[in-house]
Amino acid sequence: MCGIVGYIGTQAATEILLAGLEKLEYRGYDSAGIATVWEGDVHCVRAKGKLHNLRSKLEQIETPSQIGIGHTRWATHGKPEEYNAHPHMDTAMRIAVVQNGIIENYRDLREELKQKGHQFRSETDTEVIPHLIAELLKTSASSLLEAVQQSVNHLEGAFAIAVISADYPDELIVVRQQAPLVIGFGQGEFFCASDTPAIVSHTRAVLALENGEIARLTPLGVEVYNFAGDRLKKQPRMLNLNPMMVEKQGFKHFMLKEIYEQPGVVRASLEAYFSSDGNACQATHSPINLGLPTEFYADIEQIQIVACGTSWHAALVGKYLLEQLAGISTQVHYASEYRYAPSPLIPNTLIIGVTQSGETADTLAALAMEKERRQGKENKYQARLLGITNRPESSLGHMVPHIINTLAGIEIGVAATKTFIAQLMAFYALALEFAAHRQTISPDKIAEIIEGLRHVPKEIEANLETQEKLTEHLAHEFAETQDFIFLGRGINFPIALEGALKLKEISYIHAEGYPAGEMKHGPIALLDAKVPVVAIAVPGTVYEKVISNAQEAKARDSRLIGVTPVKDGEAAEIFNDLLPVSSVDELLSPILTVVPLQLLAYHIAARRGLDVDQPRNLAKSVTVE
Amino acid sequence: MCGIVGYIGTQAATEILLAGLEKLEYRGYDSAGIATVWEGDVHCVRAKGKLHNLRSKLEQIETPSQIGIGHTRWATHGKPEEYNAHPHMDTAMRIAVVQNGIIENYRDLREELKQKGHQFRSETDTEVIPHLIAELLKTSASSLLEAVQQSVNHLEGAFAIAVISADYPDELIVVRQQAPLVIGFGQGEFFCASDTPAIVSHTRAVLALENGEIARLTPLGVEVYNFAGDRLKKQPRMLNLNPMMVEKQGFKHFMLKEIYEQPGVVRASLEAYFSSDGNACQATHSPINLGLPTEFYADIEQIQIVACGTSWHAALVGKYLLEQLAGISTQVHYASEYRYAPSPLIPNTLIIGVTQSGETADTLAALAMEKERRQGKENKYQARLLGITNRPESSLGHMVPHIINTLAGIEIGVAATKTFIAQLMAFYALALEFAAHRQTISPDKIAEIIEGLRHVPKEIEANLETQEKLTEHLAHEFAETQDFIFLGRGINFPIALEGALKLKEISYIHAEGYPAGEMKHGPIALLDAKVPVVAIAVPGTVYEKVISNAQEAKARDSRLIGVTPVKDGEAAEIFNDLLPVSSVDELLSPILTVVPLQLLAYHIAARRGLDVDQPRNLAKSVTVE
Repeated sequence: MCGIVGYIGTQAATEILLAGLEKLEYRGYDSAGIATVWEGDVHCVRAKGKLHNLRSKLEQIETPSQIGIGHTRWATHGKPEEYNAHPHMDTAMRIAVVQNGIIENYRDLREELKQKGHQFRSETDTEVIPHLIAELLKTSASSLLEAVQQSVNHLEGAFAIAVISADYPDELIVVRQQAPLVIGFGQGEFFCASDTPAIVSHTRAVLALENGEIARLTPLGVEVYNFAGDRLKKQPRMLNLNPMMVEKQGFKHFMLKEIYEQPGVVRASLEAYFSSDGNACQATHSPINLGLPTEFYADIEQIQIVACGTSWHAALVGKYLLEQLAGISTQVHYASEYRYAPSPLIPNTLIIGVTQSGETADTLAALAMEKERRQGKENKYQARLLGITNRPESSLGHMVPHIINTLAGIEIGVAATKTFIAQLMAFYALALEFAAHRQTISPDKIAEIIEGLRHVPKEIEANLETQEKLTEHLAHEFAETQDFIFLGRGINFPIALEGALKLKEISYIHAEGYPAGEMKHGPIALLDAKVPVVAIAVPGTVYEKVISNAQEAKARDSRLIGVTPVKDGEAAEIFNDLLPVSSVDELLSPILTVVPLQLLAYHIAARRGLDVDQPRNLAKSVTVE
Repeated sequence: MCGIVGYIGTQAATEILLAGLEKLEYRGYDSAGIATVWEGDVHCVRAKGKLHNLRSKLEQIETPSQIGIGHTRWATHGKPEEYNAHPHMDTAMRIAVVQNGIIENYRDLREELKQKGHQFRSETDTEVIPHLIAELLKTSASSLLEAVQQSVNHLEGAFAIAVISADYPDELIVVRQQAPLVIGFGQGEFFCASDTPAIVSHTRAVLALENGEIARLTPLGVEVYNFAGDRLKKQPRMLNLNPMMVEKQGFKHFMLKEIYEQPGVVRASLEAYFSSDGNACQATHSPINLGLPTEFYADIEQIQIVACGTSWHAALVGKYLLEQLAGISTQVHYASEYRYAPSPLIPNTLIIGVTQSGETADTLAALAMEKERRQGKENKYQARLLGITNRPESSLGHMVPHIINTLAGIEIGVAATKTFIAQLMAFYALALEFAAHRQTISPDKIAEIIEGLRHVPKEIEANLETQEKLTEHLAHEFAETQDFIFLGRGINFPIALEGALKLKEISYIHAEGYPAGEMKHGPIALLDAKVPVVAIAVPGTVYEKVISNAQEAKARDSRLIGVTPVKDGEAAEIFNDLLPVSSVDELLSPILTVVPLQLLAYHIAARRGLDVDQPRNLAKSVTVE
């Protein structure tokens, strides 16, 4: 992950860089730093921890420099200490570099450069870059641009880089290779950043570099080259985003606000994906409208989904819906695993990538691999790609021909909540659309499910107050708990995984989700009075089974917390604590059952005094492998 | 789970029942009990905890009864207290019942019976049975057999039952419905048990009841009926097992002995599955011999595997091999989940059930469901079933037409070790056989892989001493550790899961396995200096990636333990501790990398003073859902 910013122009760079980094803090906040060029020297200031530490340091130093680069770090190689913070410099401290990504062959390069007398000051992979540039300037390169060009041909991995040098005070060189980098065009000033939010308050004219491109930014303009040194023709495009101000609106944390926004997200999704009366539109003959062409659904026999983290959980719910409603065999893969051990090629396969940010490196790479290996094959083996993302303007949007835009709005909390529910809604729509085309369920049944979905927003709202009170109460009792187990079966098994992940992410409690029937095959050994068990028990196909599995846990003295419809007397008898949800069809229940689990994680983390919106070690979008 | 025994004959029953229960203690050991009939009364003695508690109690009581039933419990409904121990009795204490399984409708029955004046003394599901039998004897049944017959028609669920009554001192009634029950034929004496080890020291003539059967055992013989009351014709068969004495042979625990037996298990598998010179046999044109007919491999397009626990991990390695070597798309399902949400029907699909005991209820039920739903469909949709088990004589053996017999020998430790490696060997053989038939890899490559496998046993042996010393040393340091993370990628991802499961099962430490690339998508928030990370890093397709992911963990202060080839200088630099394995082809590495993880779990549990061979809450074979 990590966030990069850069500036060259007519204003003082420092404040612009700091403001840009603040917008990118979602990408990492282990440490931060800024380098500027002023009066023939590079001035580099860095600080461990969050950005405000760097800001405090900079308040004591005033450099009116008009060129600079900045970085906020999510640590990959080397601890989050100041000496590992970016920018990194060469031995003579004439060149400063920030990087987002991973240089895979850095160990070999480091050894070579050390033998040539370069002195290293950090444990990072990035530090090889300034030393390498310095070495090439000394031996073979006649300009900073040329040295960077030669350097990147030595680097293996995925990276975005920005470079400045005291000896080239009017140049900012940037590189993109498998990690995002956007250039912004102001009036006599130019910006670069890992993502548009760092730029949009200055300009809406941007150019997203593509892989294998290098750009030189000067006060006069931008030149783009490929790695071979050929100059390329490019054009900026206009962003249609408004510079959006995201505020907490009275909530203590963004995460809590985003949990409360979920009924609205479901409503927006209903509005966008389904015709308003539940009847088929004349144009599409379907009450579902995802904007996908009819031939898209024609002869698909199997679906492969690649995703990571919370998106992977949404994909598991999606698998259940696609298989049980539309009868299409669906596999869900960890994107990071799929890249290196893909399934054997199956004809007529739809490949879906799910990523909130549209920038998740693992997911993009899995899709790219799939596209590449199907190229030149006969027609039925051709890659048919679909993306599900909250950022249709992202790299994913450029990579795949069809996108389902999830309608969560910008999510600031690092732990995903409303974007998860938005992804679920996309899968309901997709599964129903496939079911309609394949006629696996009747139009009446489809209309009934859509009608059921329409009731979901007000049911979430009806539950929220009670759930918040109960989870706040439970948070008192569980603030010191060290382990949690979450159980579910069928369509609620992924919700058990998601509940556990939320707790892990923001409270640092070791929580683990299991399909309830699997506990007795080993994990039940963990259970005793110190390990509470949260069980999702919704009447339907597996209700009795979940209750039986919960009984097995209770027999081991575990405290049982039930996420279950409130009126169920039997459940009330078995569970020590209840987190009630409204009674809905089992098929729709995940949209309701996940909410109290989000609240439970939130309140435990808040009770423990942790930084809910920016949990340690994490970043909002994971743009490294 | 739970184990049932019963005796009727000419000898004193108590000692025979106790000895039988000792052989079944692998099925559960939360509590145990025995009931006998003597001088017109039922004598029932029960004790919490392991069997030796019951034995101590019985030493003070002498009943020379020649009929009795016994039970060792793995708690499902109700805590492992004495009042929940079996046998359970009716209000008048004239009828005693032991049960293995789950009565799903027990709450309704309990309410009905309470209203009729029956007094309940436990929290179990089982207790409804003696009360129900007593009620039916009072109202509609003219004999104990008839009362049991009528009772079972009221019960829903999966169960095996044995019943005695003070009013019928010459009868032992047993029932089988989805839970195993075997009858043994002695000379003027008859036995019943959940599994043959409880019987084989008395007789080798046995009859395994089938689902929906009831038997009446008297001192003269055995009568078998169906649930409708029709008498059935049956014949005992002879077991070809020798009454095997399993001893620890100088090892402190069975688990450690079984870890050390693994090179032998690999050798036995090589001997059985592969021709001795690696060349194709003339008869089969293949160097692999699994005894499966050639048409078996003919037109299979996809494979679905159902399994639980450790077998599920072996199946994940199997998936990797089947996909990457033989190019067959393979899905692995939790059996407990697959039952209730199976994949859409795909033609020409092989369905594989993997279960060490051949009695795992979830796996058997998933296979039965698959068989049933494919019945009457056109030919290409017919169920093609294959079982992989260490007990070919088990229920699985009866259910499927083809079995791969894993060659681990009897495993006593509840945490599976050598049976896991035996399952891996079965999957290597199966994947290579498919690859040979489908010609996805060359005969030379196949011969090379088999040759590689032949070196594995001596490599495991070469590693064992060092690994044992190092894991014993680490166990000192980690005896108080509360959390562990295990990381792997590709073919070693399932080994990370298995390493974590071993630690959970026997040390009760919350360990969790992850595909290494997934950590940064959330779980990495857990990491700090208190959470050690075990990473499996074997040179090959994902080596650099695992090392990068391990770096990310190290940057969060986690102590890193590397399972990696010893000579790798780079790895030595990154990891805080090494558990070295021999250098072998990545494809074969799981057989080596799992061993130090088994040893690590073993030594930590032993260091913590825990009961390694019989961990709390668990049972060796899980015959309930």
